[in-house]
Amino acid sequence: MRILYLDPVGQASFVGEIADSLAQVSRPDTQIDVISLQPDRPRHIEYHAYEALIIADLVRITYALNKNYDAIVIGCFYDVGLREVREVSGKAVVTAPCQSTTAIASQLGNTFSVLVGRRKWIPKMSENVRLYGHDHAMVSMRPLEIGVLEFQQDHDYTCDRMIVEGRKAVEEDGAEVIILGCTAEFGFHETLQDELGVPVIDAILAPFKYAEMLGETAKQFGWYPSRKWGSEAPPQDEIDSWGLFHDDLPEIKTLVSAKAERELA
Amino acid sequence: MRILYLDPVGQASFVGEIADSLAQVSRPDTQIDVISLQPDRPRHIEYHAYEALIIADLVRITYALNKNYDAIVIGCFYDVGLREVREVSGKAVVTAPCQSTTAIASQLGNTFSVLVGRRKWIPKMSENVRLYGHDHAMVSMRPLEIGVLEFQQDHDYTCDRMIVEGRKAVEEDGAEVIILGCTAEFGFHETLQDELGVPVIDAILAPFKYAEMLGETAKQFGWYPSRKWGSEAPPQDEIDSWGLFHDDLPEIKTLVSAKAERELA
Amino acid sequence: MRILYLDPVGQASFVGEIADSLAQVSRPDTQIDVISLQPDRPRHIEYHAYEALIIADLVRITYALNKNYDAIVIGCFYDVGLREVREVSGKAVVTAPCQSTTAIASQLGNTFSVLVGRRKWIPKMSENVRLYGHDHAMVSMRPLEIGVLEFQQDHDYTCDRMIVEGRKAVEEDGAEVIILGCTAEFGFHETLQDELGVPVIDAILAPFKYAEMLGETAKQFGWYPSRKWGSEAPPQDEIDSWGLFHDDLPEIKTLVSAKAERELA
Amino acid sequence: MRILYLDPVGQASFVGEIADSLAQVSRPDTQIDVISLQPDRPRHIEYHAYEALIIADLVRITYALNKNYDAIVIGCFYDVGLREVREVSGKAVVTAPCQSTTAIASQLGNTFSVLVGRRKWIPKMSENVRLYGHDHAMVSMRPLEIGVLEFQQDHDYTCDRMIVEGRKAVEEDGAEVIILGCTAEFGFHETLQDELGVPVIDAILAPFKYAEMLGETAKQFGWYPSRKWGSEAPPQDEIDSWGLFHDDLPEIKTLVSAKAERELA
Amino acid sequence: MRILYLDPVGQASFVGEIADSLAQVSRPDTQIDVISLQPDRPRHIEYHAYEALIIADLVRITYALNKNYDAIVIGCFYDVGLREVREVSGKAVVTAPCQSTTAIASQLGNTFSVLVGRRKWIPKMSENVRLYGHDHAMVSMRPLEIGVLEFQQDHDYTCDRMIVEGRKAVEEDGAEVIILGCTAEFGFHETLQDELGVPVIDAILAPFKYAEMLGETAKQFGWYPSRKWGSEAPPQDEIDSWGLFHDDLPEIKTLVSAKAERELA
Amino acid sequence: MRILYLDPVGQASFVGEIADSLAQVSRPDTQIDVISLQPDRPRHIEYHAYEALIIADLVRITYALNKNYDAIVIGCFYDVGLREVREVSGKAVVTAPCQSTTAIASQLGNTFSVLVGRRKWIPKMSENVRLYGHDHAMVSMRPLEIGVLEFQQDHDYTCDRMIVEGRKAVEEDGAEVIILGCTAEFGFHETLQDELGVPVIDAILAPFKYAEMLGETAKQFGWYPSRKWGSEAPPQDEIDSWGLFHDDLPEIKTLVSAKAERELA
Repeated sequence: MRILYLDPVGQASFVGEIADSLAQVSRPDTQIDVISLQPDRPRHIEYHAYEALIIADLVRITYALNKNYDAIVIGCFYDVGLREVREVSGKAVVTAPCQSTTAIASQLGNTFSVLVGRRKWIPKMSENVRLYGHDHAMVSMRPLEIGVLEFQQDHDYTCDRMIVEGRKAVEEDGAEVIILGCTAEFGFHETLQDELGVPVIDAILAPFKYAEMLGETAKQFGWYPSRKWGSEAPPQDEIDSWGLFHDDLPEIKTLVSAKAERELA
Repeated sequence: MRILYLDPVGQASFVGEIADSLAQVSRPDTQIDVISLQPDRPRHIEYHAYEALIIADLVRITYALNKNYDAIVIGCFYDVGLREVREVSGKAVVTAPCQSTTAIASQLGNTFSVLVGRRKWIPKMSENVRLYGHDHAMVSMRPLEIGVLEFQQDHDYTCDRMIVEGRKAVEEDGAEVIILGCTAEFGFHETLQDELGVPVIDAILAPFKYAEMLGETAKQFGWYPSRKWGSEAPPQDEIDSWGLFHDDLPEIKTLVSAKAERELA
Repeated sequence: MRILYLDPVGQASFVGEIADSLAQVSRPDTQIDVISLQPDRPRHIEYHAYEALIIADLVRITYALNKNYDAIVIGCFYDVGLREVREVSGKAVVTAPCQSTTAIASQLGNTFSVLVGRRKWIPKMSENVRLYGHDHAMVSMRPLEIGVLEFQQDHDYTCDRMIVEGRKAVEEDGAEVIILGCTAEFGFHETLQDELGVPVIDAILAPFKYAEMLGETAKQFGWYPSRKWGSEAPPQDEIDSWGLFHDDLPEIKTLVSAKAERELA
Repeated sequence: MRILYLDPVGQASFVGEIADSLAQVSRPDTQIDVISLQPDRPRHIEYHAYEALIIADLVRITYALNKNYDAIVIGCFYDVGLREVREVSGKAVVTAPCQSTTAIASQLGNTFSVLVGRRKWIPKMSENVRLYGHDHAMVSMRPLEIGVLEFQQDHDYTCDRMIVEGRKAVEEDGAEVIILGCTAEFGFHETLQDELGVPVIDAILAPFKYAEMLGETAKQFGWYPSRKWGSEAPPQDEIDSWGLFHDDLPEIKTLVSAKAERELA
Repeated sequence: MRILYLDPVGQASFVGEIADSLAQVSRPDTQIDVISLQPDRPRHIEYHAYEALIIADLVRITYALNKNYDAIVIGCFYDVGLREVREVSGKAVVTAPCQSTTAIASQLGNTFSVLVGRRKWIPKMSENVRLYGHDHAMVSMRPLEIGVLEFQQDHDYTCDRMIVEGRKAVEEDGAEVIILGCTAEFGFHETLQDELGVPVIDAILAPFKYAEMLGETAKQFGWYPSRKWGSEAPPQDEIDSWGLFHDDLPEIKTLVSAKAERELA
Repeated sequence: MRILYLDPVGQASFVGEIADSLAQVSRPDTQIDVISLQPDRPRHIEYHAYEALIIADLVRITYALNKNYDAIVIGCFYDVGLREVREVSGKAVVTAPCQSTTAIASQLGNTFSVLVGRRKWIPKMSENVRLYGHDHAMVSMRPLEIGVLEFQQDHDYTCDRMIVEGRKAVEEDGAEVIILGCTAEFGFHETLQDELGVPVIDAILAPFKYAEMLGETAKQFGWYPSRKWGSEAPPQDEIDSWGLFHDDLPEIKTLVSAKAERELA
């Protein structure tokens, strides 16, 4: 199976670590490509205006490359561009962190809390949780007051904050499961799990394993994305005659192939 | 008051007519600028992937020009980029057709139906109606099976279809108000109103008059957009140091100033 | 445009100040009439049984006078009698504070909190917010523990309480916009806005400007209230033969004509 | 137990039959008083403006007489004035048809349909069902196109229409229970039940038996109406000093005492 | 009327007291049978796996005995087996604590809080309140941190805890009514009511009086449980040929007949 | 990985075919055990009273065997006993058809329709879809009017019915994805997919692949079921001292080990 992980930022400092993480947990027959955007793109997309600057990149990459992949992962907890990317993903299924983590959390406990970086993020993320139908199970969104680019700077501080807010989420809010509300919060779920005694769902691993499952069910059972009604793809002749998607494709960097890495090792 | 109408397509064939319509109904002291996008942008945005191609344009235009305007209107019933544009609109309020028409409809009747172009559009528009909190009042979305670029081609056909589906919406679905679910459906609301005997809300006029109201209340009462929590704008130093929003600004065409037009006449 | 502001209390002590406020903010071509009820009517309607005592007055006044007005404003945050008044308003649109303020707030931020007078008010007001579809955006209703007749007695005390609870609404509850949940809370929104740094929506100004907009769109576009299905008006022959609405009309006092006032000045 | 049935119309033609019906089904120790309004009040309240004309009567009667009763029934499927009447009912519980029938229906089946008189009624009744929390169980409201005053004119016609629409409600809409959506639809539930094979809940009997239960649990267990927060009653000194509720009390006609009738028989 | 109270535990220590309570409050013509399960069944069913162990008992008892009863009460606030028991109850109506108490509370106040034993119970009970449509009125579930078998051990402690949490529910959460969220919380509602000044709904008395009402309306009006669509009962021939329900019937102990008790006294 | 498929019926005629299906689609390292219940258990569980007869079996089997499995699949679209089984599943995750199919469908399209066997099933299944949060996406449940035991009798008839109703679901109801609402509907999804042109989610394959994913994420990431609050397991000492779960364990038949089968072949 081939999976494309879309890291929707430029000069993506975490992309190597993310790729390594995925390589360690992928199935034996999964090949992972990780792509980040051109260097002039925003380095984080905490602001919705930043999201706007890169959503065309996600669509163009997906349109250009979907035939090479069974599944595509959007690497941002805003699930940025999920509807738009899905429209041009062809037969590739598309997953994203908020939808995947809440789906998994709803199978492991009655309630969950999301540890987000900043209060800035809460309205859009709450809206997504509501759209996905899990708002009745979400007992809180707790801000850590840590920005995307800061999560991996001082691991002890980040971890301490997560434990403090995670404990309040469990004890005060009644959360049975914790969700980490940013892909940059990777690397902490196990420690947190040990401290809190409840499952802690990581925002990179969850959509990745979800992508493996959906990529497999697509191939095995023909459960490809629907192309009916609202899921109808744009017509090829319109795309061609208007010259859409072709110009201005961002630089693509294939950072790692997990499969290859492991075979070498 | 100065209002910017953002027509989010390239080679916008209707933009002159839209500008004329707005000029005729604006308040005496309103100046209207109408902007469409660069010619290489999609000519309609029925597909969400097409929306993705122009959302950065909307944000860049808004960021660059918001100081010149009291209010900005996004001219697409998908309310494309509403959250993103609002974030960088500074003190300018931002309106959009779906939010404005449903707000007005909810003051004029208990229920409404939306006449959309194609079934393609329904899921995203339904999602928006649900997010705005009016799903309990929406008795149906009825597709006319007419594309955006076709609405103004054969006026008789378009009008006939609207009457047929509008009548079903009223008689069978129980709609007390009809909403026209595309800005390209302009020019028909009065005929339809006469035929159906219920208010028919136009997707250009509604967000425009809403913008006039919100532009006025902003200036009079200081009811500018909130910049707190989820509405926080991106920090200027980040924008500057990363060079965001500045490059690649689409060509801006100021098509009409309603105020000036009328003063000349 | 002619707008009728219905102050639904007897011996209305604030009615002059309300009229002055509206006169200062109205459009140049707006004439405002402000009506309060007969002296034996309750002086406030915090209790629902008091509402019951005056709802017939609102209907009778509206039935008798709707031809003289483009829009009618119900001056109570319970939106008392909104459904009933709308039924007999003919071509006049009818607005009310809770519906108008929440509609405007939902355009200015993701979330809002309502500063109400007493906890007594919360269940009915919450019910209205839920009916209007904005419950997902309301993060709290905070009681000031000040009664309707007390708001204007000690301005410093009222303002202090508003700042204290407004700050909690913003900081603790996550409100991006504040709504003042009583028409008697007029005169404070600007101070509060300066203190809190978020828009503060006034319960008199919002429905008034909303009425101006809807009055204009009614005249310009024919967007009069629907008279279909649930919005059907009572039949004239029944009203006549049963002698409804005619007897016992409360004393009407036209307190101010904003237009005239300003022309004199 | 003493129960007051409030028939909220003037010149109430059905009130005798209603009283007879209740007398036949009351518990042995229940005394029923049935009150209708002054002759100049509307003869039906299909229109919300008509409701407005009589809601003060309901409040005044309840305020004046609540000490004499254990429970009060509001005899209109709009549940007119339920919130207002409850506020001044003292220790008497108050029931109404829509709330009682939907509560009972939800114990007898998974889904229900309401047979209403005219489409006019649907928006307010739907709103009430939504407020009571039973909208997920309501599969349809079906209009019989029969007005309140016509239900008892041609029994065969009324019954035929009920069977036709009731059958559609069961077979097409999936209703497991039928609710009769008007107190004037009395006398048909048994025939309809035989024809349709599902329980058919009558709009007079349901709130009456509910009132008997709540009247009993009030006396036995002290489960009187809450007087806290939103249920707080108006203060006596305000009522007294402002002279509320006392003037203009409508003529009260005690039409029947079921208990007495039966003791005589 | 004959009512069966199903106490869904083995070695039921409270069953005598429950029977006594019901005997004291039943109508003169009500005969009560109270049944508990075989001694090897769980002594409480706080855990859902324990519920699973006894749900077949409830169904078998109901199937075997429904012809002897007008109404059946399931004595557990989880409303364990309500859907399943209703399916085989024939003409007997079935009530349960959560559905009955929330229905009654919604008639006595705008909001309620449930005092549950342990946090363990909250997710399932919340789910039920949501399914019954009363989640908008529930302001909190407050755990007393007292297990089912402990409620009646130290009455002072239990009562103190109830007063502490009940007061917080009223004062902090805004509850107008309190619901006792366990049948083992019997015997405290009056004291609590005196302390808190709001109605306190008992989890045994409420479904019992509800059962009396529904048993009466079934007999008087034919409002038996629907047997249509989802409420269809299993076919007799299948039950017979497969030998379902007959084997392994738990030991039935008729502990008290209230009617007989009182006649003897 | 070891997965247990619980077929919750006795004399399970399809169990061999189900086991074969799973064996063909499992991952190389998955071992599947399929268990059906004792012969005296119901042969289908269309009726909720039948569900009640086997839910203790599911709990007992799960309690006894959970240490042997990474994941457990409940093989009935009612998701019978899901909450109860999850409580005693230890570290094994538990999946069920309705929750898994709706989760997958929500990733493949905007809307879905469920093809159920009989109208009988709709209320409980609708309730589950509502509890899982996908009711906004479900455009219809369409009954095939085929019972569980009939699906595999006349394949042509079953398939024809599925195509007829599936086509209506897509064309009339607007479904973008079809869900097969019974595990006995296996074997048809590919044909149906070819006919309808939308993904058709099978009720056996979906929860099985979901179980493989969750079994893997449990082992890899420690995402075991939460045991906090509502997910707390019953205490061992209570289980032991009361002798719960041990007696009366149903006969267990391990029908197939997919891994072994394939290795032999």
